[in-house]
Amino acid sequence: MKIAILGTGMVGVALGTKLVQGKHDVVMGSRTANSEGGRKWLESVGGNARTGTFSEAAAFGEIVIDCTNGANSLAALRLAGAENLRGKILIQVGNPLDFSNGSPPSLTVCNTDSLGEQTQREFPETRVVKALNTINCEVMINPARVSGDHVLPICGNDARAKSEAAARLCEWFGWKPSNILDLGDITGARGTEMYLPLWLRLWGALGSPIFNIQIVRGE
Amino acid sequence: MKIAILGTGMVGVALGTKLVQGKHDVVMGSRTANSEGGRKWLESVGGNARTGTFSEAAAFGEIVIDCTNGANSLAALRLAGAENLRGKILIQVGNPLDFSNGSPPSLTVCNTDSLGEQTQREFPETRVVKALNTINCEVMINPARVSGDHVLPICGNDARAKSEAAARLCEWFGWKPSNILDLGDITGARGTEMYLPLWLRLWGALGSPIFNIQIVRGE
Repeated sequence: MKIAILGTGMVGVALGTKLVQGKHDVVMGSRTANSEGGRKWLESVGGNARTGTFSEAAAFGEIVIDCTNGANSLAALRLAGAENLRGKILIQVGNPLDFSNGSPPSLTVCNTDSLGEQTQREFPETRVVKALNTINCEVMINPARVSGDHVLPICGNDARAKSEAAARLCEWFGWKPSNILDLGDITGARGTEMYLPLWLRLWGALGSPIFNIQIVRGE
Repeated sequence: MKIAILGTGMVGVALGTKLVQGKHDVVMGSRTANSEGGRKWLESVGGNARTGTFSEAAAFGEIVIDCTNGANSLAALRLAGAENLRGKILIQVGNPLDFSNGSPPSLTVCNTDSLGEQTQREFPETRVVKALNTINCEVMINPARVSGDHVLPICGNDARAKSEAAARLCEWFGWKPSNILDLGDITGARGTEMYLPLWLRLWGALGSPIFNIQIVRGE
């Protein structure tokens, strides 16, 4: 499958590498065609990989995975271009974390709106799916890094886009269908993005980001 | 133990009833001494129970459990009175949910502040512990309603107050010490309060509020 990865940070590199290793054709996009992050990734990864601008990557991908820093995602997606994203599934992995006042970060948007919703509003012809944003990137691409069953919440307005994102990407990464939990429309992104402050506290308390939550139910 | 319950809603009634059944002495406080919710509770519960104003309840309790609707908690605590709360452990169970624009609710405070922090700032001589705010009240008082192990995050500035709240209240309700997770100081309330939007989405997706999360870790 032709996949665009937007963003050359830790998350983009982790997902891009796994996808190339799995024989997918990947173009990793960044603000400039020849970014340092992109170059380093290309040297390390081999396979069917290229780098380019956000726009070039988005034009190439049948599926676009937005791995940009959430605080800059909308700007990156504008550079990718609505025409290159039209009709496509955009899986948004990032959270709108603002580290400008240090750590712990705040969210640039929350409570009555979310980055997922902002993205869907600004790109109404793109099929935005918010997913994989509740775990560390090592767990995203290899859920077996964490023992047993654990949950992957997913949301978006387009039911077929969610099914395809779940099947073609999340399950491909190793997520069991029974652990992928559909939270409904894109407003569910308020829930999963606002979970990040707790996720960061849990990381602090546990001393490692390699964890996830499992839903445990009543009898 | 002498316990004050502030609030006569579903949460206050659930906790108050369990505590009275367990032979604790409970005064349930509300805005007026003779509220309808308090009267009904008193008729149903028997045992060493009384009702009164917020102030009367707070003056009585060795431990104060704030079960008020989070949107009104600060107003209720002002009525309870700083002098009646001084030096005491205040376990705050509520979340600052605002239903004034319908459902899903927004939070009256979040992101760079929390109700827990607001409470600790306004009542600096009270030992505020945020706990039990991440689960339905049936699970609060009976964690075995949910199968297996599941987590109870707790936070606050006073380490001894957290230990006492965990041991004297949470463990008394049936929480295993190994499932009580200390998230650090009261700023951790941002994490647990901002989890509520996800909790509400999970309730919707699961069709029942009788669930909790468990932390699952990497090898």
